[in-house]
Amino acid sequence: MPEKTSSSETGLVLRSRVDEDGTLSLWLADEPIPTPGPDEVVIQVQAAPINPSDVSLLTAPADPSSLVAGGSAERPTLQGKVSPQRLPALAARIGRDLPVGNEGAGKVVRAGENATHLQGRTVAVFGGGMYAQYRLARADDCMVLPEGVTAADGASAFVNPLTALCMVETMRREGHHALVLTAAAAGLGQMLNKVCQEDGIGLVNIVRRAEQVKLLRGLGAKHVCNSSDPDFMDQLTQALRETRATIAFDAVVGGPLAGQILNCMEVVAREDMTEYSPYGSPVHKQVYLFGGLDPGPTEIERKAGMGWGVGGWLMPWVLGRLGPARVKQLRERVAAGITTTFASHYNEQISLADVLRPQMVERYAKASTSGKLLVDPTAA
Amino acid sequence: MPEKTSSSETGLVLRSRVDEDGTLSLWLADEPIPTPGPDEVVIQVQAAPINPSDVSLLTAPADPSSLVAGGSAERPTLQGKVSPQRLPALAARIGRDLPVGNEGAGKVVRAGENATHLQGRTVAVFGGGMYAQYRLARADDCMVLPEGVTAADGASAFVNPLTALCMVETMRREGHHALVLTAAAAGLGQMLNKVCQEDGIGLVNIVRRAEQVKLLRGLGAKHVCNSSDPDFMDQLTQALRETRATIAFDAVVGGPLAGQILNCMEVVAREDMTEYSPYGSPVHKQVYLFGGLDPGPTEIERKAGMGWGVGGWLMPWVLGRLGPARVKQLRERVAAGITTTFASHYNEQISLADVLRPQMVERYAKASTSGKLLVDPTAA
Repeated sequence: MPEKTSSSETGLVLRSRVDEDGTLSLWLADEPIPTPGPDEVVIQVQAAPINPSDVSLLTAPADPSSLVAGGSAERPTLQGKVSPQRLPALAARIGRDLPVGNEGAGKVVRAGENATHLQGRTVAVFGGGMYAQYRLARADDCMVLPEGVTAADGASAFVNPLTALCMVETMRREGHHALVLTAAAAGLGQMLNKVCQEDGIGLVNIVRRAEQVKLLRGLGAKHVCNSSDPDFMDQLTQALRETRATIAFDAVVGGPLAGQILNCMEVVAREDMTEYSPYGSPVHKQVYLFGGLDPGPTEIERKAGMGWGVGGWLMPWVLGRLGPARVKQLRERVAAGITTTFASHYNEQISLADVLRPQMVERYAKASTSGKLLVDPTAA
Repeated sequence: MPEKTSSSETGLVLRSRVDEDGTLSLWLADEPIPTPGPDEVVIQVQAAPINPSDVSLLTAPADPSSLVAGGSAERPTLQGKVSPQRLPALAARIGRDLPVGNEGAGKVVRAGENATHLQGRTVAVFGGGMYAQYRLARADDCMVLPEGVTAADGASAFVNPLTALCMVETMRREGHHALVLTAAAAGLGQMLNKVCQEDGIGLVNIVRRAEQVKLLRGLGAKHVCNSSDPDFMDQLTQALRETRATIAFDAVVGGPLAGQILNCMEVVAREDMTEYSPYGSPVHKQVYLFGGLDPGPTEIERKAGMGWGVGGWLMPWVLGRLGPARVKQLRERVAAGITTTFASHYNEQISLADVLRPQMVERYAKASTSGKLLVDPTAA
């Protein structure tokens, strides 16, 4: 990989644009390093993960078979075609050169007059545009990582850790006492298992393969149900009976799973009913959909009476409703546990240019099964 | 029809039982007229409608083809078989002789010492057991009908009127400003149209047939969308654009309709977005399912981003959360408008014994299309 050719006053920024004709373009732009305002800093980004949520700005809108690589080895480009049916949903981004990369970490290299205490510190940031060599940030948005923690350690300090913590917050605020997670063997699930063990909260893990059951049991998980087993519904009902979980977070989303969870919750809730009602138990049973591993329709076979809900769930929106004091507590908990409870693991470190290479696109497009990639923009 | 043979101290009560072996039995029991406590009254029931919600206690659990009539002309019985798959959901009613009939009206013939002001009044009651010649009720639960209003006028003073009013309450409490109703040409929909016109609330009506569009327009409805039209989605999106409705009440429930409503709401919400988000508009879009005209699974094709919810909705549960002061106001509004805004219409008056006749079962099982039946227990 050659040394970067940009001058000391510019840095590379990965940008993504969808044009009116449905062309998706990804490229590395050489842009001036921003000058921070009084309450801002400039971070030299050293590590930024590729999360499933990043792929929606990278390549997801385009038909995968339409992607064509271009440019040079050092400044590769990628183009693809968005299908006409998907285009209306993208109206708000047509013609805009969007930055990409939800979260990451790096070193503060420039600081405004009210942020000089951050100069030289390694900080983590959330909010887009982290696939870049330099990124402007509000000082308040920086999570200062403890001494000795590297940018790679802290690169994933927001999406998974705050998603796990916000699930627990939602559970509590909506009056539930234990929870269910699907696709529970992934990084997020491993984190949520640690959080629930620390906090003494009942967690029912749903996975699809026997080795995932083993993995989670090895991490101390008490309740793991395998949806590929013929007695899955019985396993799930029993786990719900033991935990009294009445809220679930589902990353699979398409297919019958959300409805199956509700129906098993209702079976347990009805065991407590002393009077018959054709509307079932009034205990509210909730499934929040936060992913989309299966893009098909969510099919709810309604056997759960009338006391149920299904809906979308998005961590930043939940965070926005918690209020700054609680958010600060959650962020401090993440920073303190960034190399333990909230540690992330990566299969490979890649450069900014690598993000645009077709063989990498293939890998991060199926992120859940092939392990996580970490982008190091200093290697571009 | 012969005169009733019960003594003056007993009355007929329609009862329904499911046995452990899955046998459903319906019969008329001759039971002592109850003695009211100090705060109670006994109502001679004169009119009680058969609502879709009653059918679930009558014949719905059994396979329709299994129903067999028995008994005498005067004391008919009906038996049927519940499929083994449905039986677990009925566990709480196994072996219990349940009364039937959610609402009705009649004359107070006995009153406890604190309820003598009700003696001789025509009152409406909600809460089950109205398919009976006499029914005990708490004085507080009686809606006293205005002078000159008959029991037949007041028989449906609860289910449809309070459902319509509770939909508006839910809309307001959850921060929405206009609403959508499906299967909107039925009695409930006609009532909700009158309520929304009185209160100046935007209402989008969804129906399935051209004559239903005409019917609702004749009642002054501004927004009526026909789901059988090829441009239904465009009609719906335009009506949502004009009303800004972000909450819907869906009686169809099975199939893609709930998801289609959410997706059209999202199209409108995105028109207000100035920045692109792969998660769509943060405006919350809600569909409550309160019926079940289509028993198939609810299929949600997720194009509505993350700001949406679908869930069960049950009027009595909503009423329970409103608090007694607000409930009193709603009941007073219904009583005042019982022959106008909240008037119900019936195709035929039948006796208690008629409820158990197979040709009647067929009619009320498809209630939505064949018009409403009114039971007059004094004719049994």
